[in-house]
Amino acid sequence: MIRQKLTLLFLLIPTLLSAQQPSIFDDDPMQHLPLGMEYSKYVIREPTGLPVVKQRVEPLHWWTNMVNPRLEVLIYDRKVAEFSEVKVEYPGVSVEYVRRLENPNYLFVGLYIAPGTSPGFFDLTLASRVRALSSQTVRESNSQGVGATKTVRYELKAHPRDGWKERESLSSKDLIYLIMPDRFANGDPANDKVYGMTDTLVNRKKFLFRHGGDLQGIIDKLDYLEELGVTALWLNPVLENDQPYASYHGYAVSDHYRIDRRFGNNEKYRELVMEAHERGIKIVMDVIFNHVGDQHWQIRDLPSKDWIHQWPEYTQTTYRAPTIFDPNGSEYDRKRMTDGWFDRHMPDLNQQNPHLAKYLIQNSIWWTLYSGQDAFRIDTYAYPDTEFMAEWNRRLLAEVPHLGIFGETWVHGPGVQAWFVGGSQLKQTVNTHLPGVTDFQVYYALNEALSKDPGWTEGVNRLYYTMAQDYLYPNPQRNVTFLDNHDISRVFTSVGEDMTKMKSALSLLLTIRGIPMIYYGTELGFTGAGGAFGEAGRVDFPGGFAGDQRNLFSQADRNSTEQKLHGFVKRLANFRKSSLALTSGKTIQYVPQDGVYTFFRQQGNELVMVIFNGNSEARTVTDLSPFQQQLGGLTRGFDLTRNAEVSLKGIELAGKETRVISLVSQ
Amino acid sequence: MIRQKLTLLFLLIPTLLSAQQPSIFDDDPMQHLPLGMEYSKYVIREPTGLPVVKQRVEPLHWWTNMVNPRLEVLIYDRKVAEFSEVKVEYPGVSVEYVRRLENPNYLFVGLYIAPGTSPGFFDLTLASRVRALSSQTVRESNSQGVGATKTVRYELKAHPRDGWKERESLSSKDLIYLIMPDRFANGDPANDKVYGMTDTLVNRKKFLFRHGGDLQGIIDKLDYLEELGVTALWLNPVLENDQPYASYHGYAVSDHYRIDRRFGNNEKYRELVMEAHERGIKIVMDVIFNHVGDQHWQIRDLPSKDWIHQWPEYTQTTYRAPTIFDPNGSEYDRKRMTDGWFDRHMPDLNQQNPHLAKYLIQNSIWWTLYSGQDAFRIDTYAYPDTEFMAEWNRRLLAEVPHLGIFGETWVHGPGVQAWFVGGSQLKQTVNTHLPGVTDFQVYYALNEALSKDPGWTEGVNRLYYTMAQDYLYPNPQRNVTFLDNHDISRVFTSVGEDMTKMKSALSLLLTIRGIPMIYYGTELGFTGAGGAFGEAGRVDFPGGFAGDQRNLFSQADRNSTEQKLHGFVKRLANFRKSSLALTSGKTIQYVPQDGVYTFFRQQGNELVMVIFNGNSEARTVTDLSPFQQQLGGLTRGFDLTRNAEVSLKGIELAGKETRVISLVSQ
Repeated sequence: MIRQKLTLLFLLIPTLLSAQQPSIFDDDPMQHLPLGMEYSKYVIREPTGLPVVKQRVEPLHWWTNMVNPRLEVLIYDRKVAEFSEVKVEYPGVSVEYVRRLENPNYLFVGLYIAPGTSPGFFDLTLASRVRALSSQTVRESNSQGVGATKTVRYELKAHPRDGWKERESLSSKDLIYLIMPDRFANGDPANDKVYGMTDTLVNRKKFLFRHGGDLQGIIDKLDYLEELGVTALWLNPVLENDQPYASYHGYAVSDHYRIDRRFGNNEKYRELVMEAHERGIKIVMDVIFNHVGDQHWQIRDLPSKDWIHQWPEYTQTTYRAPTIFDPNGSEYDRKRMTDGWFDRHMPDLNQQNPHLAKYLIQNSIWWTLYSGQDAFRIDTYAYPDTEFMAEWNRRLLAEVPHLGIFGETWVHGPGVQAWFVGGSQLKQTVNTHLPGVTDFQVYYALNEALSKDPGWTEGVNRLYYTMAQDYLYPNPQRNVTFLDNHDISRVFTSVGEDMTKMKSALSLLLTIRGIPMIYYGTELGFTGAGGAFGEAGRVDFPGGFAGDQRNLFSQADRNSTEQKLHGFVKRLANFRKSSLALTSGKTIQYVPQDGVYTFFRQQGNELVMVIFNGNSEARTVTDLSPFQQQLGGLTRGFDLTRNAEVSLKGIELAGKETRVISLVSQ
Repeated sequence: MIRQKLTLLFLLIPTLLSAQQPSIFDDDPMQHLPLGMEYSKYVIREPTGLPVVKQRVEPLHWWTNMVNPRLEVLIYDRKVAEFSEVKVEYPGVSVEYVRRLENPNYLFVGLYIAPGTSPGFFDLTLASRVRALSSQTVRESNSQGVGATKTVRYELKAHPRDGWKERESLSSKDLIYLIMPDRFANGDPANDKVYGMTDTLVNRKKFLFRHGGDLQGIIDKLDYLEELGVTALWLNPVLENDQPYASYHGYAVSDHYRIDRRFGNNEKYRELVMEAHERGIKIVMDVIFNHVGDQHWQIRDLPSKDWIHQWPEYTQTTYRAPTIFDPNGSEYDRKRMTDGWFDRHMPDLNQQNPHLAKYLIQNSIWWTLYSGQDAFRIDTYAYPDTEFMAEWNRRLLAEVPHLGIFGETWVHGPGVQAWFVGGSQLKQTVNTHLPGVTDFQVYYALNEALSKDPGWTEGVNRLYYTMAQDYLYPNPQRNVTFLDNHDISRVFTSVGEDMTKMKSALSLLLTIRGIPMIYYGTELGFTGAGGAFGEAGRVDFPGGFAGDQRNLFSQADRNSTEQKLHGFVKRLANFRKSSLALTSGKTIQYVPQDGVYTFFRQQGNELVMVIFNGNSEARTVTDLSPFQQQLGGLTRGFDLTRNAEVSLKGIELAGKETRVISLVSQ
């Protein structure tokens, strides 16, 4: 009963999505707010200690021979904090400490697992129970008596390190494909509605409802992705989001150790990783350390008042990333940025709480070792505590050296973005240890290059200036480049469905330095713009769902535009896959001349020339003398964009066209 | 005769100024090109060795006990390179080497002046003459015979270091005032036309002609400047520009050791420094290492073919500063940027020639020690050889530790500008050793804040973002901030002569971190925009010239607007002068709220609050809670912009208004 009341109390709706975009949201009023639900109300949360519905021990298990021999086990059970002593009888394992917070249902046990400890099961024996340790906050007391003990079984598995020798890290050799799992393919209709979960409103006609896509759907389409040339999948978050409404995107986690049952289960996720690996495809897990869903079990029964940032009144983050590093910045603004909430239904985690920090770090290590996944994409990278994020990066890379990591830095300006990259020589207050970022600066520049005419620093010249500032990054090849994603307008819409511009966009994405990322369906010209910030491109992949009239996974059902784009992406992606110049080569860019931007990628004697006409009108490039250092006496090449041989003596370019020319230097 | 022919041959006109701006340049055709003159023609120059019109020994003299005991003396004389031996008989002075280049009229003598050497005169005895050393290039041979000797008298003065103890460096405590000497005040009409100089076309009605301003004029107005609150004068270059036309701006030097006689002479320059110092005003010399005028004596009789960058055809620089550091950049573009010419009439110096490099460095040291001046502003900083500029900075700062230096970085983007600052932690290929730069990023941001409405990163938010990226600079207080200069539109014109915006601009300039610079006459609302790039603001200061109808140096002749602005600048400048908060204090800025940008300057318990309304519409700030860390319980202050007490409980701001409130914190 209490749980149901809480459910009603904490019903929260993303305010960002509320009634701003008539075209998408107003066609059916039902879509805004299902019957019986209310918009979120901000409340101060207390660590009172509610009746425990489900006991938990987390991490679910651990491994022997970790780089860090220390582990903190969280035990969640009715008044478990009344136990003041924990004993372990297992060779190599010792208890270093026992800690409790305000909520009597939580106990944190620090273990030391000596190197060389054997895999196996052991018991944590909880003893020395002190009744009503914090009586004022414990509402019920019909539990075991003083002096009782309790045992918690725990497993240490063998470390999977042996299989790591040939693991390749996510790198610029890869092509990432971003999937919103709910919208990609429904491989298992049986899990569309899950009994016992709060939200069972599956309805593909409603933008904010679940549509039924799942992990099995992705597994089923791996062959399609492999054939396209994809070598890494980034899935929007797949951990449980047991939220009442609009949780399809996955960014409001309610259980850190459970794949959302609408997507499958933990084993299914592990299966996806294995199946992907068999096709040479890596898996990138999308994780959020800034916030959780307000239905997270730790939010419903808060471990301590400082587990989340609690404000007297609802206080939103300012979304102003520069506050993090601004030497002129105020403490007030830094606090607003990091401690303000991202949205009403997503409590802002306080990673300065050391138990929470350990919990989150261990969780990420757990998923990596459990599933064998390859990389993390860190959501809202600038918003959690900066030092915590640095520690997370450091700890994860220490445990899993081949791990790929990139943070979402939806920020403005190369100088702002570069600050967040680790190991930089910039005057950083913190070494973030972050290897790479989502390269929004290249995204903005590509967009401007395709939409605006050249100015001194505008249009194509913005792209030139952005690339020129690569000196700000220790390794710009680790940046993830993209044309669109789940939060912004789809690129085919941005370019007005102009095929020349679209091919230019794709050509530049697949030839510029960095790790390119394609948003699902962009290879087929999916469209969508609008929503609160551009998320309307989260459309269903036709053919991924039962009853779809067309199946775009299959060539037979594609129209001419779709097939042209698909073929174009496939050709370039597969060429790129085998091109050391494009994946690992040096970039040599030239100052745009008359709005025409030329750069080369070069590795050994492999050479790729990319020419982009930033003007709306056609141009013919006849003077190749600036490029002699690369071209030497070359006069012919193969144009991958037009799929034909090309003479370099007069390269014709339509307005906004890009040509990618493969050459072998002499 | 040959000289006159050369004069005709090399007549050059700045192409930037050619016939593009009808409003300024077309009112009188005479203005474009004086009769008998021709537009510049690019020619390849040869170090042939012309008849020597004037013998030279440079530096004109030197000092004992320099930090660097080495000196290279340039001797320019008819076939002087035929001497293969140079002797010196003076205790402590020895000849280390004798070098010649292609042109037989040049000899470079390397001297070592031991520490402790006494001041005095000595002779350089040139001997072992070898006839017709490079006979093919020497056209005349009616000189002294083989075996003849020649003596060159040279002076070592006592080092002026003793007076340096109390010298304060140019810093954020200063307020710089930029003067274009030809346009400020004509203190000595006798030097308006100088017999023997190429250009004697003094005409105040022609924009590109000389107007007659001079150093005496500046000396005469020092009291005015002191009263205004100015503590440093930056003069556009005052070295000789014996160019046929449009040399009034001074950027086409023809003699590195001579003040242009239209401005005065070397002694007059030294007098200016002394007179200024007596009023607590520093002097900043404007120097150009990238190029010289094509009438420079070293260009007319070129020491060596590689003294300047010679291209098969005239090749202009691309003006693309990022090529200097771009890790993706091409050698082709770097060469175009640094070796291309700034303009047709200004040959591009090759500072990689070691004799030229020494010549330029010694020249700067000479002027500093000779005149007692305080600082340098380095023109076109990004264009000379990067390593040379680093060496120049290093050498100058080694010899004169209190020297102020800032480089002109007319570039786009904080990341681009910051690269040029020395000692930075950025991934620089070169440590430039440059202490400060002209802060074009703050200029762009201030302009945008005053002209555009707030957007996420636009308008006032651009200013916030720019300041937030101060982490890119080792010390942003060394940046020179400004609202206008000799190359861009005058700020009063830029703000549409709107008094609120103008006062905002001035208020922000005088309160923001850095060394503020005011362009002459901006304190009186001088206007001007247009010209090839905005130089039309180079107007005459009314009252600086005989026959002027009004004398704006005097309050009596000012109209109401002029007097209001003058009083405003004077009040703020003089307040700033005595304010540790504004000159040396920490900056604490706040994320703009509803387009209202607030920052504080704080030092000890002195506090200044600056609030700028970036909106076009009025705002009232009532919520001071964000600023509690600075304001504490303060409720009243003194508003320097409105010159009245102000209650902090509801600060009213007109559209685009700035208020500067002086407070004493508790």
